[in-house]
Amino acid sequence: MTIQQLKYQFKLVAGLLLSPFGLFAQNNDSATIKRISDEIMSNGTAYENLRVLCKKVGPRLSGSPQAQKSVEETARMLLEAGADTVYLQPCMVPHWVRGEKEKGYVQLLADGSKYVLKLCALGNSVGTGTKGIRGEVVEVRNFNELEKLGREGIQGKIVFYNFPMNPTYIRTFMAYGESGSYRTRGPSRAAKYGAIGVMVRSLASNNDDFPHTGTTVYNDSFPRIPAVAISTNDAEWLSVKIRSKSNLVAYFRTTSEMLPDAPSFNVVGEIRGTVFPQEIITVGGHLDSWDLAEGAQDDGAGCVQSIEVIRAFKATGIKPLRTIRAVMFMNEENGGRGGAKYLELAKEKKEQHIFALESDAGGFTPRGFGLDMSAEKRNKIAAWKDLFANYGVYQFSEGGGGSDIGPLKAIGTALAGLIPDSQRYFDLHHAATDTFEAVSKRELHLGAVNMAALIYLVDHYGL
Amino acid sequence: MTIQQLKYQFKLVAGLLLSPFGLFAQNNDSATIKRISDEIMSNGTAYENLRVLCKKVGPRLSGSPQAQKSVEETARMLLEAGADTVYLQPCMVPHWVRGEKEKGYVQLLADGSKYVLKLCALGNSVGTGTKGIRGEVVEVRNFNELEKLGREGIQGKIVFYNFPMNPTYIRTFMAYGESGSYRTRGPSRAAKYGAIGVMVRSLASNNDDFPHTGTTVYNDSFPRIPAVAISTNDAEWLSVKIRSKSNLVAYFRTTSEMLPDAPSFNVVGEIRGTVFPQEIITVGGHLDSWDLAEGAQDDGAGCVQSIEVIRAFKATGIKPLRTIRAVMFMNEENGGRGGAKYLELAKEKKEQHIFALESDAGGFTPRGFGLDMSAEKRNKIAAWKDLFANYGVYQFSEGGGGSDIGPLKAIGTALAGLIPDSQRYFDLHHAATDTFEAVSKRELHLGAVNMAALIYLVDHYGL
Repeated sequence: MTIQQLKYQFKLVAGLLLSPFGLFAQNNDSATIKRISDEIMSNGTAYENLRVLCKKVGPRLSGSPQAQKSVEETARMLLEAGADTVYLQPCMVPHWVRGEKEKGYVQLLADGSKYVLKLCALGNSVGTGTKGIRGEVVEVRNFNELEKLGREGIQGKIVFYNFPMNPTYIRTFMAYGESGSYRTRGPSRAAKYGAIGVMVRSLASNNDDFPHTGTTVYNDSFPRIPAVAISTNDAEWLSVKIRSKSNLVAYFRTTSEMLPDAPSFNVVGEIRGTVFPQEIITVGGHLDSWDLAEGAQDDGAGCVQSIEVIRAFKATGIKPLRTIRAVMFMNEENGGRGGAKYLELAKEKKEQHIFALESDAGGFTPRGFGLDMSAEKRNKIAAWKDLFANYGVYQFSEGGGGSDIGPLKAIGTALAGLIPDSQRYFDLHHAATDTFEAVSKRELHLGAVNMAALIYLVDHYGL
Repeated sequence: MTIQQLKYQFKLVAGLLLSPFGLFAQNNDSATIKRISDEIMSNGTAYENLRVLCKKVGPRLSGSPQAQKSVEETARMLLEAGADTVYLQPCMVPHWVRGEKEKGYVQLLADGSKYVLKLCALGNSVGTGTKGIRGEVVEVRNFNELEKLGREGIQGKIVFYNFPMNPTYIRTFMAYGESGSYRTRGPSRAAKYGAIGVMVRSLASNNDDFPHTGTTVYNDSFPRIPAVAISTNDAEWLSVKIRSKSNLVAYFRTTSEMLPDAPSFNVVGEIRGTVFPQEIITVGGHLDSWDLAEGAQDDGAGCVQSIEVIRAFKATGIKPLRTIRAVMFMNEENGGRGGAKYLELAKEKKEQHIFALESDAGGFTPRGFGLDMSAEKRNKIAAWKDLFANYGVYQFSEGGGGSDIGPLKAIGTALAGLIPDSQRYFDLHHAATDTFEAVSKRELHLGAVNMAALIYLVDHYGL
């Protein structure tokens, strides 16, 4: 190794400690970010806006009157935050309704006793009809066990998928990804072998009594069969009963159905750029939530944080060079139509989307950003790392973004996702426990601080 | 700079990326830490032990019957965790009692109306006597304002310290440190000028209706005057009234008193070292809590995490080279006698304490360790950094430890403190809201994972 090579390598490594883009710039940026942070931590309105979304609006599934109300409320919030332009992007959304409160039980045939199940229909699932369905239960731990049983073991029965979230994954999203396929693909894979219905163990990281809903996706090669999630405590109980060879049947009744598509909107609020207004930077979350929950962490948090970015820019007097857009996407949970519409309009208007940041992993204390973009752009952002150190963000990892901004990848937009701490998320995700009370004001606002800081840097230096 | 210097510097910097103590060792250690983590995240009992401390035992102020019960319960837990020796260290503790439920109000003299205050006596404070005290209220924002008012402005009045925790400090302990002096030193400083009593704005990071207690420290040069904390909402209300020149008086009644010292114990459970049994590694938290709270985050969490370290070692078959001791310290909150006794006995027995780790900042998701030791030792620990990256710990900072292990510094012990995320801590610290329900099982257990990993490394490599 020559001294020249050594020097170069030393510089590269040192770059991780001290950003290479100049100490002067870094000091200025550091002061600006401190101003942003002080403003948000002292005067932030994200928490009170979230209270409105959770308590005044409430659950806001796509197509519901509450979803419409959330459009109106967030449009108002964006105006109050200081966006110079607020408008709606019309889009049609799937309109699934849960119908009557679900009922279900397990009956032990030995003594006829009934154990009431805490259950809910999976999102987008078909109903059982008013009589419900009743049948023998076959428990499978995974798809391998299902395949082995085949038609002989499944036909005419109710399949019970009991695949717990793996507690050893420290990043809980890994466990969600692994277990999630039983909810999304399980019903159709059981229908392939003649199952009459499916019960899925709730995708939850804790053992409690709340069923967690979420979308299932039918494969149209097979009959659409009804599907419910049961609480993790019920899954544990049922599994013990089945393994102890109890003779039992299950019954459940759901009247959920998919209605014709309904009109809805994305809500957009922007501050027009002073120098490069044609370059658009998007920051967003999704406005719709499941009908069982207030949708506080999922994803009211991401919405109010995005509005807070706009508010913090205005309140601190930062005039962005590029156009900053806060977007409340509609229909992330059961269709993704808002995200698709956003791309469609971007293409139609030939907009130049240089960067998009989504917050859809909860309003928990922030730890990092996931970056889905070229290595060059990722390195540019990672070089700003030190500027985030005082605000709890240290992790800049490859891959990320979010469902709603994902479509923008088709037009080359650099994507990023906020990475909050994930330990508590799946205790409450898609369940009645996802309430305003489960959100910490300081954690929520600290997430907004880091989002605003990243948006500021991308705006200031381009990407 | 010579090439030799350059090489040295490069190595130092590179050491932050790739530990210098050998890739092979790192791979082995990485596998061991993964085993520890999997064991704790899958089978950890810290959360259920905490439930016992909070719900079966409850608030456990030094000298109370519940404190004694907590001694018995944690001794049992340590045995069940697999400690080969469990014993008690007797120590006398201050025995302060709150007495009857406090009462207090503000009366507006214009119409005689009374506003009931949510208040509590400060720990170790004297009572008002059964008649209570009544007087004009003088609000001060800080000690400067107090000094300016002097005896003329203070004599015969009730001083109201209204110094909010600074929301812009991201590390909330900084704000606690800053505001904390009004609780600890405020009463005596007001007594110096003839105040008859003190009301302190609760040391809380949120605005709510719960008074937060905590120790006050009298300076015996001045009369001991009664002192209470009022809720942050009440502090805001009262401040508005005072600033709008309302003519008002305050009344409060406390019957708290300091009884003679009472006998109590530290609880110790150890696994004797196989090679260097004389070298002692301590991991601990404090068993006592304030009487108003279940003491879940402060500091039941630290106790059950320390017990979990013992359990994880036994369950994964790690036989420590050195002696590992989990210690439940008594009386951190209002006297520190347990920590002092631990040092006293260590000296008496000429024990060799190489390292002590305390968890007393809540069972929130972990972020790092604070290290109070020589630079050489700190660098040795920091070189293990990569081993913690998968478990959420990335910060190894200078300074730390904890109140209970602090005395060990006198005999040269290297001290460390777990640094959990601090955003939620002061919403509930020393208040009735510090309950079991406010603890996340995964966050608590992940803290224990990192504590066990650090103890494992220090045990394995020495310090």
